[in-house]
Amino acid sequence: MIIVMKQGATPTNVESVVNRVEELGYKVHLSRGEARVIVGIIGADDYLVRSATFEVMDGVEKTVRVMQPYKLASRDFSQTDTVIDVGGVPIGGKRIAVMAGPCSVESREMVLEIAHAVKEAGATILRGGAFKPRSSPYSFQGLGEEGLRYLAEAREETGLPIITEVMTPGDVELVGDYADIFQVGARNTQNYSLLKALGKTDKPVFLKRGISGSIQELLMSAEYILSGGNMRVMVCERGIRTYETATRNTFDINAIPVLKQLTHLPVVADPSHGTGKWDLVGPVAKAGVAAGADALMIEVHPQPERAWSDGAQSLTLDHFAELMRELEAVAQAVGREI
Amino acid sequence: MIIVMKQGATPTNVESVVNRVEELGYKVHLSRGEARVIVGIIGADDYLVRSATFEVMDGVEKTVRVMQPYKLASRDFSQTDTVIDVGGVPIGGKRIAVMAGPCSVESREMVLEIAHAVKEAGATILRGGAFKPRSSPYSFQGLGEEGLRYLAEAREETGLPIITEVMTPGDVELVGDYADIFQVGARNTQNYSLLKALGKTDKPVFLKRGISGSIQELLMSAEYILSGGNMRVMVCERGIRTYETATRNTFDINAIPVLKQLTHLPVVADPSHGTGKWDLVGPVAKAGVAAGADALMIEVHPQPERAWSDGAQSLTLDHFAELMRELEAVAQAVGREI
Amino acid sequence: MIIVMKQGATPTNVESVVNRVEELGYKVHLSRGEARVIVGIIGADDYLVRSATFEVMDGVEKTVRVMQPYKLASRDFSQTDTVIDVGGVPIGGKRIAVMAGPCSVESREMVLEIAHAVKEAGATILRGGAFKPRSSPYSFQGLGEEGLRYLAEAREETGLPIITEVMTPGDVELVGDYADIFQVGARNTQNYSLLKALGKTDKPVFLKRGISGSIQELLMSAEYILSGGNMRVMVCERGIRTYETATRNTFDINAIPVLKQLTHLPVVADPSHGTGKWDLVGPVAKAGVAAGADALMIEVHPQPERAWSDGAQSLTLDHFAELMRELEAVAQAVGREI
Amino acid sequence: MIIVMKQGATPTNVESVVNRVEELGYKVHLSRGEARVIVGIIGADDYLVRSATFEVMDGVEKTVRVMQPYKLASRDFSQTDTVIDVGGVPIGGKRIAVMAGPCSVESREMVLEIAHAVKEAGATILRGGAFKPRSSPYSFQGLGEEGLRYLAEAREETGLPIITEVMTPGDVELVGDYADIFQVGARNTQNYSLLKALGKTDKPVFLKRGISGSIQELLMSAEYILSGGNMRVMVCERGIRTYETATRNTFDINAIPVLKQLTHLPVVADPSHGTGKWDLVGPVAKAGVAAGADALMIEVHPQPERAWSDGAQSLTLDHFAELMRELEAVAQAVGREI
Repeated sequence: MIIVMKQGATPTNVESVVNRVEELGYKVHLSRGEARVIVGIIGADDYLVRSATFEVMDGVEKTVRVMQPYKLASRDFSQTDTVIDVGGVPIGGKRIAVMAGPCSVESREMVLEIAHAVKEAGATILRGGAFKPRSSPYSFQGLGEEGLRYLAEAREETGLPIITEVMTPGDVELVGDYADIFQVGARNTQNYSLLKALGKTDKPVFLKRGISGSIQELLMSAEYILSGGNMRVMVCERGIRTYETATRNTFDINAIPVLKQLTHLPVVADPSHGTGKWDLVGPVAKAGVAAGADALMIEVHPQPERAWSDGAQSLTLDHFAELMRELEAVAQAVGREI
Repeated sequence: MIIVMKQGATPTNVESVVNRVEELGYKVHLSRGEARVIVGIIGADDYLVRSATFEVMDGVEKTVRVMQPYKLASRDFSQTDTVIDVGGVPIGGKRIAVMAGPCSVESREMVLEIAHAVKEAGATILRGGAFKPRSSPYSFQGLGEEGLRYLAEAREETGLPIITEVMTPGDVELVGDYADIFQVGARNTQNYSLLKALGKTDKPVFLKRGISGSIQELLMSAEYILSGGNMRVMVCERGIRTYETATRNTFDINAIPVLKQLTHLPVVADPSHGTGKWDLVGPVAKAGVAAGADALMIEVHPQPERAWSDGAQSLTLDHFAELMRELEAVAQAVGREI
Repeated sequence: MIIVMKQGATPTNVESVVNRVEELGYKVHLSRGEARVIVGIIGADDYLVRSATFEVMDGVEKTVRVMQPYKLASRDFSQTDTVIDVGGVPIGGKRIAVMAGPCSVESREMVLEIAHAVKEAGATILRGGAFKPRSSPYSFQGLGEEGLRYLAEAREETGLPIITEVMTPGDVELVGDYADIFQVGARNTQNYSLLKALGKTDKPVFLKRGISGSIQELLMSAEYILSGGNMRVMVCERGIRTYETATRNTFDINAIPVLKQLTHLPVVADPSHGTGKWDLVGPVAKAGVAAGADALMIEVHPQPERAWSDGAQSLTLDHFAELMRELEAVAQAVGREI
Repeated sequence: MIIVMKQGATPTNVESVVNRVEELGYKVHLSRGEARVIVGIIGADDYLVRSATFEVMDGVEKTVRVMQPYKLASRDFSQTDTVIDVGGVPIGGKRIAVMAGPCSVESREMVLEIAHAVKEAGATILRGGAFKPRSSPYSFQGLGEEGLRYLAEAREETGLPIITEVMTPGDVELVGDYADIFQVGARNTQNYSLLKALGKTDKPVFLKRGISGSIQELLMSAEYILSGGNMRVMVCERGIRTYETATRNTFDINAIPVLKQLTHLPVVADPSHGTGKWDLVGPVAKAGVAAGADALMIEVHPQPERAWSDGAQSLTLDHFAELMRELEAVAQAVGREI
């Protein structure tokens, strides 16, 4: 950490800061410029030093962190891209994995119909929500365990591994009995109790970026799971909240290459939530692949106008099949397969 | 709900929409303008009608909600301001309640020292965190039940009711054994499992606005608790995330009068998180009172430079006492007491 | 426009609103729901009706616009994509135009070197700034007319048309003497005096989205130029301001397909400003093409570490040439050429 | 400026950076931590050193600015609050100046009526727009010079100095012939050509924060005017653009005390644009005063429902008079007068 003293900080101010650093057990490195003094803390794992310790001291202007706060998630920990094997489907390698399915599991028939259709079209993983975080207490909250059973049946019929959301630590065991991948939604990215519980499981975790989460916060949340002992985490860009109202969220395409630089974990793009409109899903899915995403998550529904949730952003089965064909060319153009 | 058809929508498009509305059991009201047709859904509790049902239909441009999605939290439900009694301390009336204390409970001595000091200065409720949501898994996570015991001891000594954070449904019972008010933090505003659990308790809930939550989302989250049966909820503006980096958050002062218009629930201002800097807490606390807040939450610490968390935004005990005196004049200027 | 009355609005409230609409010369269409009354204004070009006229009346909850405020820029005006011919280079057709060059024109030699290199690599238009909007009055402000002369010389040598920024109405004539395309920067997107002046010229205008401009505001600004008589406008997504600090701006990839839906004008992507970091320019340029952009604007510099401005986001000549080769495959994958 | 090297940067990387700093004529201060090397540039006016110079070099992770980029606007330049005299009305002293008037000048009668009324209520300066920046080219663009004449007549009748907006350098002379204070609107905060032109005049300038401008950018824009030789600048918080749609803008109350800390220039609050709704103007005006604003700008209109612009946020003459009475108590509570 670097501590920038104010212009006009007194020698006593500087001395107090230096003493405080040394009291904490760190070595000091002092730079005296013409206008200001800079105090460097040497050898410190600086995210464990509380910056406020210094920010409230007289004569201190600001503190600047030098080191990244995450370790296991960082490229420093592993230069090699992590590949997560999910029931034989690799996520993170040359081949782009496609997770497709309905927002909510609505019925047994519906899930089976979708599972067969998306498999046919080339999807490798089936998604579907049984526990649904809804902004209104009066909205449909998901089928719960019944939904999980339908998903499991679809897996048995098609061979597709399944991913489904878990909302609270108390459900981790139940959801884990059915799911191949735990999904953590955007409203739970910083639900640390949940992240800690998932860190103790042995199943892969799909972690979405928060609704207005920073890239660093996403990796810090991944670190919660990794540091708990579960190294199979993938992170997902799903659009962030901005002032623009033309779309449901603003898909942060920059986040794809930024995450690829910062972490070895697989990076997933979710153009369904990233746009909120089915007719934008295709262009943004292609953009995600072109920018380097390792996987896609896409919502589909046989009759979007009758979907119980997220119908506006769901592709029909036909549109999904068409998109998969188009994505093949884009994947090849950037040296990938799909 | 109003459905705006596209310019050039065909009669068949309009007919399909009308049929779909009627199929859902609602009555239709059609307005034919020169350029467009507008389809109104009459008599519907329109937040239960899925807008996507229509947004994906041919010829539809957009849908517009007419009704508010929350009911129990709204002024339609109660024109009278709700006053919540917490161990004899009213929150929501003429007198502005002040909740003060440390970010984290660090030790028995520290909590007792602060409790006496803030009581002396005029605070009416003691705050303190025992379970701490921290962005890093390597940071101090709170003293847990030990911290709760210290808070309870401080209550016994000073008579101040206590408020403390609960992070997960599994802790509701434990925290409820000690706390007078459950605090829900900004990262858990949309932790619906937690909100449902709190809706079944009989203790007041202090609900913070999400880090980038909208005012409507805050009231919808309150609705989760209210609809669960617990009518004693207060909502808190604590700053939102914006592009401005001069402060930790941007305190949304507009939200204070907006919330007072929309809801009967008590409205709290948290200038500590709203600014992130101790020397801005005073001006923004005064602004909050001037704008109509019913209560304040303020972080204090005997030695902010040694605080285990949030030191940069904590007032010293002296600064807090001074601020309380200044707030008195502002409260009187707007017809309140403190 | 639709006027939503409050729950509990009195018959007199409704009557006043109806009278006001009729006084303005419009016809009224009344919908009486169970809980509320909706007043529709029929046949009005509703962006000319001041919504405040109604929003301040007793009993009115809100107003909702139905029509788009732009006309000449909209798809209603032209279903066919506009193709702008710039000295033989078409912008807006099957072939993706690439505008490349330095942020600032620094010297004659530098511009000529870059012009030859980017032409060789496949760029079709040369960019370069002679008048520079800089946030500090103490920073380099551009070479002015001297810079324009160097650009003109580069055009003469290479045949590449040139695009350069104009900052103020007083410079329109001077810049127009040299430039083939006027560039309007993100800080001037709503400089209406400038837009009006450009509406009277006969040269194409390249209009950037504002730093935190909405898509609708961008099209409204285009409308200023179009309604002045100059129909050759292209609009550019260049990243928006958000809370994310990992990149200079957040490139709004959604805006590309949204703009293609809303307007017939050519849509340009600027991954240099959209990311602010040279090593993200490639992935985001590919994403822009995959999402449907008609053109790209990319900053290059022979020695980015010595650039007088925007060095951090400038590609070296070699990296630019390499990117052009990679873009070819992506363009083909989406049925385009480059 | 501080240059943070990457973990794993080679000695050659460090040497190149050091050489580059010395080549630029600055002295280097090297700090070698256990994990990283930090290169400090000593004695440099660091906002003139281009950070990109270093950010693109091998082994560099990031650069951090130490000094503020503005000088004349800063507290380092003057510890004493600047008081601007406008025709006998001081702006910036103990007494809070109130600038009130219509958004647009609509007619001679209307301006005179308002001028008398706001003077009576206690306003000290008359505002009114003659040149209007409107997002639509089809909206009313202001009365132009005719409007300026009406304002001048109102000044003659009431003695109130007048403030009015100037949109482009070409109008500076004309507007200066009438106005006592030049107003720069939020869309022109970074119109550097305009700022330079105003720096050469001898009249006070009222500079609004950009629609999504940072506090630092506001002060940099003030610096453009100050460095041009015009030291009479006041800066205005008028709300920023965020994701929240309940209000037109989010009034950044934090900005008031932050600006008071950073600059000696008078700080104005504009609750009309800051909220966009007349019934929020009062609470937020009081909040602005409580937080330390030196002046207020408030829009009033005799019949807001008939205003040609901004009617929704305009107070009636009666409401304005009532607010002025309420503000008196708040001003006194914080040791000011109004």
